[in-house]
Amino acid sequence: MADAGDYRILHEAALRDYLAGISDLKALLGGEPAAWEITEVGDGNLNLVFIVKGTRGGVAVKQALPYVRLVGESWPLPLSRAHYEYLALSKQAQLAPGLVPALLHHNETLALTVMELLEPHIIMRKGMVAATQYPGFVDDITTFMARTLFFTSDLALSAAEKKQGIAAFAGNHALCKITEDLIFTDPYRIAEQNRWTAPYLDRLAAGLRDDMELHVAISRLKLKFMASPEALLHGDLHTGSIMVTESQTRVIDPEFAFYGPMGFDVGAVLANLLMAYFASAGHERTPGERQAFESWVLETVEQVWNEFARKFLDLWRAGATGDAYPASLFAGEKGAACLEAERQAYMQRLFTDTVGFAAAKTLRRIFGLAHNIDFELIEDPRRRAISEARAVRLARAMMVEAGAFPNISDVTGAARKLRDWQPEFANG
Amino acid sequence: MADAGDYRILHEAALRDYLAGISDLKALLGGEPAAWEITEVGDGNLNLVFIVKGTRGGVAVKQALPYVRLVGESWPLPLSRAHYEYLALSKQAQLAPGLVPALLHHNETLALTVMELLEPHIIMRKGMVAATQYPGFVDDITTFMARTLFFTSDLALSAAEKKQGIAAFAGNHALCKITEDLIFTDPYRIAEQNRWTAPYLDRLAAGLRDDMELHVAISRLKLKFMASPEALLHGDLHTGSIMVTESQTRVIDPEFAFYGPMGFDVGAVLANLLMAYFASAGHERTPGERQAFESWVLETVEQVWNEFARKFLDLWRAGATGDAYPASLFAGEKGAACLEAERQAYMQRLFTDTVGFAAAKTLRRIFGLAHNIDFELIEDPRRRAISEARAVRLARAMMVEAGAFPNISDVTGAARKLRDWQPEFANG
Repeated sequence: MADAGDYRILHEAALRDYLAGISDLKALLGGEPAAWEITEVGDGNLNLVFIVKGTRGGVAVKQALPYVRLVGESWPLPLSRAHYEYLALSKQAQLAPGLVPALLHHNETLALTVMELLEPHIIMRKGMVAATQYPGFVDDITTFMARTLFFTSDLALSAAEKKQGIAAFAGNHALCKITEDLIFTDPYRIAEQNRWTAPYLDRLAAGLRDDMELHVAISRLKLKFMASPEALLHGDLHTGSIMVTESQTRVIDPEFAFYGPMGFDVGAVLANLLMAYFASAGHERTPGERQAFESWVLETVEQVWNEFARKFLDLWRAGATGDAYPASLFAGEKGAACLEAERQAYMQRLFTDTVGFAAAKTLRRIFGLAHNIDFELIEDPRRRAISEARAVRLARAMMVEAGAFPNISDVTGAARKLRDWQPEFANG
Repeated sequence: MADAGDYRILHEAALRDYLAGISDLKALLGGEPAAWEITEVGDGNLNLVFIVKGTRGGVAVKQALPYVRLVGESWPLPLSRAHYEYLALSKQAQLAPGLVPALLHHNETLALTVMELLEPHIIMRKGMVAATQYPGFVDDITTFMARTLFFTSDLALSAAEKKQGIAAFAGNHALCKITEDLIFTDPYRIAEQNRWTAPYLDRLAAGLRDDMELHVAISRLKLKFMASPEALLHGDLHTGSIMVTESQTRVIDPEFAFYGPMGFDVGAVLANLLMAYFASAGHERTPGERQAFESWVLETVEQVWNEFARKFLDLWRAGATGDAYPASLFAGEKGAACLEAERQAYMQRLFTDTVGFAAAKTLRRIFGLAHNIDFELIEDPRRRAISEARAVRLARAMMVEAGAFPNISDVTGAARKLRDWQPEFANG
């Protein structure tokens, strides 16, 4: 892991020298180092990200800063997150080849990783604001989730391997703490960093702070997040962590990786699709112009869950080499039938978790510190607030009435019904 | 941790020399080392245990062997378990002072620990076979469990401290594996090491192997055991791991310690009390002679749960310094009421776990490798089998109909009804 003593921030000139000194990268980039085009593009909250282009090729360079970039040096954050990101990325590359950027170089001391330059991929969230459909997305993201989650779970690993994995990521607690605070705690209490679309959402924000049923629900989810190491999670799987073309998908930035509850990753994807759906009305310039996109989004929500569940179950049926549900206890026709019923029950429990975590991921984007451009780029604050209020209404129900959403179609059905729902302030 | 290179087994003479070389221990024992009385007393399954007495005092010495003592060198077992035992014992001594033996010396390389000699304490299981009541037991064991479980849980620790604890015990997976195999798997399938009171229990044993509802239930419990690090468990908290006098209780042998589900420890205590209850009829020489003891056992079962829950809740109400259920989300009168309701719901979930784990701990003692003297000392195999069959009947119901046991009085009520129940083979 990065040793703070030898760490230094590599700005443009130093980065150029550093890359020039690594022969493989120099060859890949091509031409004279002095001529390489280096651009800082980090629009995330935590790190420096450079795109470097030579005469032959390009790379992306990510370096962790010893503090939260969004906030500054007053909020220190350990460089070791680069170690965990590298560890997770390596594991994901092995389990879901072609769905994460290729790793080219890693320097623990500098907390720096050099990766394949993804071109012409864009951040999926940006594409969705522009109403772009991604026909390959469902297949890719469900393969990514099914394989990374299944193969790091007790269904595929021995208990010893699993414990080893948990221990290997246990040190990434500072990143987990960000999630624990910003997703599971702060939006529900007075916190300096909270913000929302005022004044329209003032009442909803106050409601969030007073709603004890919601506080119990979010606290149960928080406890599950902290104490249910079911599988190696990406840990931050929103549409800003996914780069796409119409035919390709790459999952990036797993620095929040740790062993946690699977529903947190799956819920993140669903929540961000649902937010894109509710935001869509706010981006509409003429009625109905984004209808095809919106239908695609809700179909995608359904397919993400259904395909994820199908692939996960297929992996389980084909390769349950782990210590959980040992085959020897489910021999014969009756055993096979009972195990299959239990697999379905397992997925149902996972779906319930997913619904709750999706709700948590939604509310934090509307009332917490980190917002998303789906909503933020709606310029008219009243229209933005209307979109947000619809998302909040669904999320609140998903969090406290999980039983009302036994199937993914119950979620999309509720979303569809809220598409044109008008909150009180809409005409106020 | 023990380095196999320098490890050697200390038999009597070598142990004498070793202890003589440690001035504190030499002084504590008193007199000439050559005159020290050294007796090997290990009746457990895994280790060497010596009692050493000098002219002034005595100590107990426990040394791990690189294999399972019960089976021999063909079943290797890592010496590192002595490290985890020492770690757990130190933590327990801090959290539940006076309820574990005092630690006097530890040598990582030799996988050896010297502890306070517990005199005139006896193994609780032996006392219960003799129908001895232990009036101080409820208070002591519930203090031990409430404090060790609460203070190592997310209710008392920060998420970072919790993850650190989990990682510190992750290496003890070989001991966890013994539990995973012998408790959660083998009794439910054909396994060479299984044994039971044949021929009387042959049908029940076959039933256990064919009962798919039970296989689903035990597999869910196994998964919970593997993937729910709720708190630092003792991991083997049966009445053979508890030494008692009528007024004192000491919990020993935490070499199975790891972060797991709390219900596993609480269930272990309840299961072993219930087995003592069912075994009691088999030890009866004249009808009713053990009635007072049996009443005390069932009262103790109820009080162990009730007092544990009361103490655990009191700790939670008084000192919830952990990251779970943050106080800031439950401010005001309404918040306090909701949090209290959630505490009760939390205990109800923990009780359901406890009931399931208690059932698992019971069935393994009747059909698996390791039996207990409660049943084994019933000489007449038919009487032994009758006692065992009653315990099996209750355990089966507890495992698959957990909903039928919402309160501990439902468990004791069911046990009482089975006291004189006659299985089919009773008059066969």
